[in-house]
Order: sequence, then C-alpha cells, then structure tokens
Amino acid sequence: MAPNEIFQYSIVTALMDGVAENGLPVSDLLSHGDHGLGTFKHMVGEMIILDGVLYQMKSDGSVTTVDASPESNAMAPFAMVTHFEPTQTTEAVLSDKADLFAILSFLLPEAHNLYLAIRISGVFRNVTVRTVGGQTKPHEGLADVGAHQTSQTFEESLEGTIIGFHSPAYMQGVSVAGDHLHFISADKKKGGHLLGLASDGEVKVEVAPISKFHLELPVHDEDFNEASLTGDSAGIAAVEG
Amino acid sequence: MAPNEIFQYSIVTALMDGVAENGLPVSDLLSHGDHGLGTFKHMVGEMIILDGVLYQMKSDGSVTTVDASPESNAMAPFAMVTHFEPTQTTEAVLSDKADLFAILSFLLPEAHNLYLAIRISGVFRNVTVRTVGGQTKPHEGLADVGAHQTSQTFEESLEGTIIGFHSPAYMQGVSVAGDHLHFISADKKKGGHLLGLASDGEVKVEVAPISKFHLELPVHDEDFNEASLTGDSAGIAAVEG
Repeated sequence: MAPNEIFQYSIVTALMDGVAENGLPVSDLLSHGDHGLGTFKHMVGEMIILDGVLYQMKSDGSVTTVDASPESNAMAPFAMVTHFEPTQTTEAVLSDKADLFAILSFLLPEAHNLYLAIRISGVFRNVTVRTVGGQTKPHEGLADVGAHQTSQTFEESLEGTIIGFHSPAYMQGVSVAGDHLHFISADKKKGGHLLGLASDGEVKVEVAPISKFHLELPVHDEDFNEASLTGDSAGIAAVEG
Repeated sequence: MAPNEIFQYSIVTALMDGVAENGLPVSDLLSHGDHGLGTFKHMVGEMIILDGVLYQMKSDGSVTTVDASPESNAMAPFAMVTHFEPTQTTEAVLSDKADLFAILSFLLPEAHNLYLAIRISGVFRNVTVRTVGGQTKPHEGLADVGAHQTSQTFEESLEGTIIGFHSPAYMQGVSVAGDHLHFISADKKKGGHLLGLASDGEVKVEVAPISKFHLELPVHDEDFNEASLTGDSAGIAAVEG
C-alpha cells in the first residue's frame, strides 16, 4: 500500500454490536502501516501504533509492547493504519481539541471531505484519556464496555505523541466521524484514547490528507455475519468522542 | 487489484448533492475491473461495464460503446468495478428482484454483511429500467435528476445481462445499500438501471462475496470539497431502489 492510504479492518458499528471475539492478526495489520490505532480481542484496552511498534494500553494503567510477529496470537477486531508521510507540518499551541481542528482546517482547506492522518508530538500540560476495560460478557457492545471504562487526566508536564485520524462525517459507523486519536507518553508508561489535551507551549503537528481508503471486512466470523450492524451514530459519538 | 475486490470512485451521497462536474477518467476506472456500473459527467445516462467494455445508456434510448483509452475524455463521477470471478453459479427462474435476493442469501449464508458482485445472464420476458437524462443545471442533485428520468419496460423475450452489486446496509450513502444493478441487452441496443425483471425460464446467476472494498475519494474537485454530504438515506432508496 502506498503512503497516506488508510487500511481499515472491520467497522466501528461492529464494535458497537459487540463483535470483538475475533480479528485480524496484528502482523497482517502492521503490513499495511506504521501509524494507527484500534482495539484488541474482547476490546481489552486501546491500541496505538507508533513508528511501526504496537502498544496495548489497558484500564489498569499498564502499557505494554505487543508482539507483532507472525507467531503472535494478538488480533485486532477493529483497527486503522497508514504508512504516514506528513504533507504539512507546523508548530502550534493547543488549548483543546477544537484548536487542533481549527488548525487542520486552515492547513488543509481542500481536504474538507477527505480523511486525515494526524500526529502530534511534544510536551503537554494536561492530557485526558480513557481506556476500555474489555467486554465483561460475550457480545457486550462498545457503549456498555465504554460505560465501565477508566478515564484519567495527567496534569503534569508530560512528553508524548498523539496518533490518529480525522474521518469525514459521511463515514460515521464505518469509521468514527470526526477525530479519533490515541495518546502514548514518551516513556511508554501512560496512554489511552484521547478525550482532551492542552499543550505545554508549542507542539509539533503533522498531517496528511487521505483520499484512498481500503476496507477489509471480517470473513469466517460468525459474530460479524450475524450482527445487525444497523448503526448508532449518537452512541458512537458518545463513546468515541 | 486481486479478483473480487471492489474499487469505488466517490460516494453516492456526492451524486445526491449534485457533485458530477468532474470524475475519474474511464481508462483509470477500467484498470480496476472488468465488471461494474456507474454514471457519467453531469449524470448523463447509466454506465455498465460488461466483460471490460464500457457502455453508456442514455435516456433517449441510445446505447453506445465508450472509448476507454487513455485519450478518452469520458469520466465517471461515481462508479464501482471489480475483476469478477464468480464463486457460486446457479440456474434459476426469477419472477422479480426479491427472488434473486432469496437465492443469493441461500447461496451465500456467510456473506450477510459483505458486498456481493452479481451477474445474471439469459432471456427475460420483461425488464424495467430507468435512465437518468442528466443534470439540467449545475449541482442538480440525483433526486431531482431522477425526477425527470425515463423509465421503460421491455415486454418481449429479450436476451441480456445484468451486472451489479449488493452492498451491506451499513454502507448506505457510501454505496447504494441493497442491490444496485444495471441491464444491457445482448444486441447492445437497450439498457439502463434495473428496476424490475422476470426471467423467461431459467437464467444463469453468478455471484461472488466481496470483503475488500477500496474507496477513492475525489481530490482537486472543488464541488466535492464544498459539498455538505450529510446524506439522505430515504432519497437514495427512492432514486436508486
């Protein structure tokens, strides 16, 4: 796959319907990109892929590197990756997520209806993340898994990287419309799904517009085949916003 | 692209919003498949791709072969193609479209939430098609273009081929949820977007499940960039059903 094309496995609506028993082997996933995010079997924790290394960030606060060799049994029931090559880079002070999207809209006025791949690196004076704890019963949907998630705010000078995507509104249910960003600290000890941020001075913002989107749907997956997948836009916004 | 993967250019919601001023050159489109459908610049007529040959079926009843060489200036503001290799083939008597989907569901019980590529060939005792006449003003949306479309029923023993796709419900707005089929007669003199059919005895039904979907979004296209693309599921069902 060429740089700045997205590979996505499954759809967010399948997670909403609790389809997380199977997934794509992580070695397959990493063959499609070195920058990305997702979740793990049974939605145990948040996935971030930073410079081709895959990390699992769990609700107990642990962050571990995941074996992504062909021998690994780790799998992703949902993930998005790209071979990221930023086309625009800037330094910016961010007081919240709204600042970020104002800047991206300014940098990429021609990408209003495209995907964006995003990387932000630097020091943050606060970062709020959540980490899903995993399904507590078979087929538990993401909204219910999210209801017992752990959220944490790091209120300290914390160096780290934010990795993710902005998806067009018309892709809601396939991807997460709007921003979907995961954070990991530079020491690889803290992280999760990004809920809020404020930078400590300027941080580096790198972005690329993406017009080519490759979707792989689960096959030989009875849960996916039998899911209703009728969609719940409000539910996705609540749990992934 | 491997067989039985879909390449799609733009999204149906863009047609609904009248984005049809530009498009993908048809030579690029045919590099991705030999089986497919779509429309042309300004939505002038229906496109069908049968065995790698591209035809334009207009509302004046004409059917013409379109030059798909790199020198051609024909373009598709929306199209879906695949390199079709049927995985299941059967003979069936079809009294309507509902029969077809009952058969497909029976043939492919594991493909409930996947795309399907479909080809039906044989003799029909009636076929109803519509052909859109094209935009009558800039940015006219597909619902309005469809309001002045021409519909025709061929009530005779007519040999021909139906080409198209079945898209999962969760892709409504990106693709056309449900079936999206175009017809062309064997003599290449009649055709259009399929509204209804009844076979004359048994026809050949070929199908393949598709789990890999490649979407290319328009770039350098001001109309696409500025479109709201908020979606109109009922409108798509009305005009594409």
